Amino acid sequence: MTTDLSSRLNREEANQELFELLRIPSVSSDSTRKADMHAAADFLRAKLAAIGFTARVDATQGHPVVYAEHLQAPGQPTVLIYGHYDVQPEAPLEEWVTPPFEPTVRDGRIYARGSTDDKGQAYAHVKGVELLLQQGPLPVNVKFLLEGEEEVGSPNLEPYLRDHAQELACDVIVISDGSRFAADVPTVTYGLRGLSYVEIHVQGANRDLHSGSYGGAAPNPINALCEIIAKLKDEQGRVTIPGFYDGVEDLTPEEREMWAKLPHDDAEFAASIGVPALPGEAGYSTLERIWARPTLDVNGIWGGFQGEGSKTVIAAKAGAKVSMRLVPGQNPARITRLIQEYVPQIAPQGVHAEVREHHGGQPVKFDLSSPYIKAADRALKRVFGREAAFARTGGSIPIVAAFSAILKAPVLLVDMGLNEDAPHSPNESFAISDYHNGILTSAYLLEELAQ
Amino acid sequence: MTTDLSSRLNREEANQELFELLRIPSVSSDSTRKADMHAAADFLRAKLAAIGFTARVDATQGHPVVYAEHLQAPGQPTVLIYGHYDVQPEAPLEEWVTPPFEPTVRDGRIYARGSTDDKGQAYAHVKGVELLLQQGPLPVNVKFLLEGEEEVGSPNLEPYLRDHAQELACDVIVISDGSRFAADVPTVTYGLRGLSYVEIHVQGANRDLHSGSYGGAAPNPINALCEIIAKLKDEQGRVTIPGFYDGVEDLTPEEREMWAKLPHDDAEFAASIGVPALPGEAGYSTLERIWARPTLDVNGIWGGFQGEGSKTVIAAKAGAKVSMRLVPGQNPARITRLIQEYVPQIAPQGVHAEVREHHGGQPVKFDLSSPYIKAADRALKRVFGREAAFARTGGSIPIVAAFSAILKAPVLLVDMGLNEDAPHSPNESFAISDYHNGILTSAYLLEELAQ
Repeated sequence: MTTDLSSRLNREEANQELFELLRIPSVSSDSTRKADMHAAADFLRAKLAAIGFTARVDATQGHPVVYAEHLQAPGQPTVLIYGHYDVQPEAPLEEWVTPPFEPTVRDGRIYARGSTDDKGQAYAHVKGVELLLQQGPLPVNVKFLLEGEEEVGSPNLEPYLRDHAQELACDVIVISDGSRFAADVPTVTYGLRGLSYVEIHVQGANRDLHSGSYGGAAPNPINALCEIIAKLKDEQGRVTIPGFYDGVEDLTPEEREMWAKLPHDDAEFAASIGVPALPGEAGYSTLERIWARPTLDVNGIWGGFQGEGSKTVIAAKAGAKVSMRLVPGQNPARITRLIQEYVPQIAPQGVHAEVREHHGGQPVKFDLSSPYIKAADRALKRVFGREAAFARTGGSIPIVAAFSAILKAPVLLVDMGLNEDAPHSPNESFAISDYHNGILTSAYLLEELAQ
Repeated sequence: MTTDLSSRLNREEANQELFELLRIPSVSSDSTRKADMHAAADFLRAKLAAIGFTARVDATQGHPVVYAEHLQAPGQPTVLIYGHYDVQPEAPLEEWVTPPFEPTVRDGRIYARGSTDDKGQAYAHVKGVELLLQQGPLPVNVKFLLEGEEEVGSPNLEPYLRDHAQELACDVIVISDGSRFAADVPTVTYGLRGLSYVEIHVQGANRDLHSGSYGGAAPNPINALCEIIAKLKDEQGRVTIPGFYDGVEDLTPEEREMWAKLPHDDAEFAASIGVPALPGEAGYSTLERIWARPTLDVNGIWGGFQGEGSKTVIAAKAGAKVSMRLVPGQNPARITRLIQEYVPQIAPQGVHAEVREHHGGQPVKFDLSSPYIKAADRALKRVFGREAAFARTGGSIPIVAAFSAILKAPVLLVDMGLNEDAPHSPNESFAISDYHNGILTSAYLLEELAQ
């Protein structure tokens, strides 16, 4: 418990290994990249085997799962580390300064799709365990579960957890797949929003029409889609779907007070993303809106002519991808059903509108008083020299709730990234110092979790 | 005046020549197809030269103009025939049953981009003149002006008309670039709507954002764009832009009565395009809404992730192409200015919205009592065996107003197509019988216009 692992870390080797993983374009939503998914899974399996784990790649109905274990600390707790090797699509490609799958270092940051979400954070755990193994036996039993479908809602992970519940049995689950509060604020995250992701499809005429010959009489599915989307929120920024807010857990006064003390400045936050204002639901602070209030955002929209120049057409159809972030008290399946019922009711005359389900994820909140959270706090203090902040996050890790429910173990969310890493955006990056601190955090955390 | 030209028409030859023209992908809005534009122009020049015209291709700042003349009827009127050899983009390509630039005959129809709009109708005039020339001298003087920028708003035609006003001097201008009222109703069109075509651009953050980490606080430009578009019309289907309806000419009681007698059935019309209802401005019949009332239609929309699967992103920007059909009393430049002023006013907090001008066209209406309209009526009676209907049309031929104003001659709109030809849509077509009747109409019209 007194080791200084920092001086033992071979940073250049750690970087090169991560670069190799980042070069594999493992985009889980792209059906043409199945071979890349297998390559990424096998890379991780081989590395874990090389450092002494029993490691294998398990097929699923979708992309494979990497499972590895190192169980040589009898009487000590068993820690299950979860991560994912799949990444978001790289589109829009033209906005990347350097190619998304050619990791490039600029100003102390590794630029590549997946650098922070989640290859960089997942691999930091692999390197952290390796670092401990280089100095002696592991202080705890360790299991790795690295999946390839997180970015598409992990459709096959829950069945996998159920099928392998005995093998995966553990005392605590560790996940690093998000952003800490600020660069100088190590963070333990105790809540995640859930998700309901759907597509709205609107059909007008049976073919594209000339807007001169039909304009004024034919229904326009793009105008109709815009009307529908506009009606999904009111002037106060509240979602109008009937029943949407039923059961939503109110923020406690303690939480509001704790968060109000965090170093956050609205003007700075707005400036960091280049906007003049931060619109949103009335009555809540920015952090409260992001961490503890549900949202509805259109993630993509399409219809009609998008090319160069002009085309005077009334399109036959239009569509949009819509995601709703959910908070404790909301159920993704119920919310999806509510929007499926509501959209056809508010669709204008003359068009057919329907909502197709994509995927969902349960919102979660963990007990702040658990000993595991205290161990994480100590580990972070050893790396950063200060105590952790306790925050929630606006993102979703859909399977966190499943882990808790199926494996009946608490989850520790120890985020290594930062919002400015721009996960899901062009030019995603991960600070090299955060990667190295992540490796140390992983190693110290395993030490702190030993009894 | 007593000739029966029908028996002299070599229909197979007429078809094959048109097919050759339709094979040239002369899409004027596609900057990669400049060579095709020249090929189409040269095809027409060569054909007109071959039948005895003095013909040439004139360069412009954009795509070239074909000009040809045959002035051997001293003392007789001079007829200027206008048409365009450019076509709409073929997108969405996957919806075409047969390739857009490989003319294919099915069920008596020629399927190809440009078949009805406007290569088929323009070429019918060329063949009509040829038919007359085969039996003797032309009864009138004829000039052809065939342009290549009609589908992009004819930006260079007005300067061309001004520069060549003397050479183009004529007694009447004949244009066939639209749809007659119904298959069995030959139609003289005396009014066209105008057009203001713009693009709305909405900018949110300076980059795409993760909808988990930012959702609830960051402005969403797609939601904002939908709000803006929804606000451009009210519940009655009226455009909300302040001043939009200023000066709009009311329909006369005579027009409403005349149109009410035309064979039109709302249920049949709705069924023909596969929609359950025909929404639009309250207080007007369907024909009135299409022919004599202004509209606002979104012709295309884009933003965020449109690919397979899901991406939880808040896009940095979104956009839409919006066209407004205008009626007599409205001015395109003024309407464009009004929407440019209005959109930023109704844009939600946190985003930057602006409207960029594409192109416009003046609305027009002609005098129903002119002798030229009566000549057209007689010519149509010789082809169809019944008198013409007098209608307006919802489409725009932006340069019709310019022709009238610059050449100081009336315009005769003798439409050969039908709405069901699906101009601007995938699987555009032109009935072979309409093409052949169009050739005969052209020939008889020139006879009837002789004094």
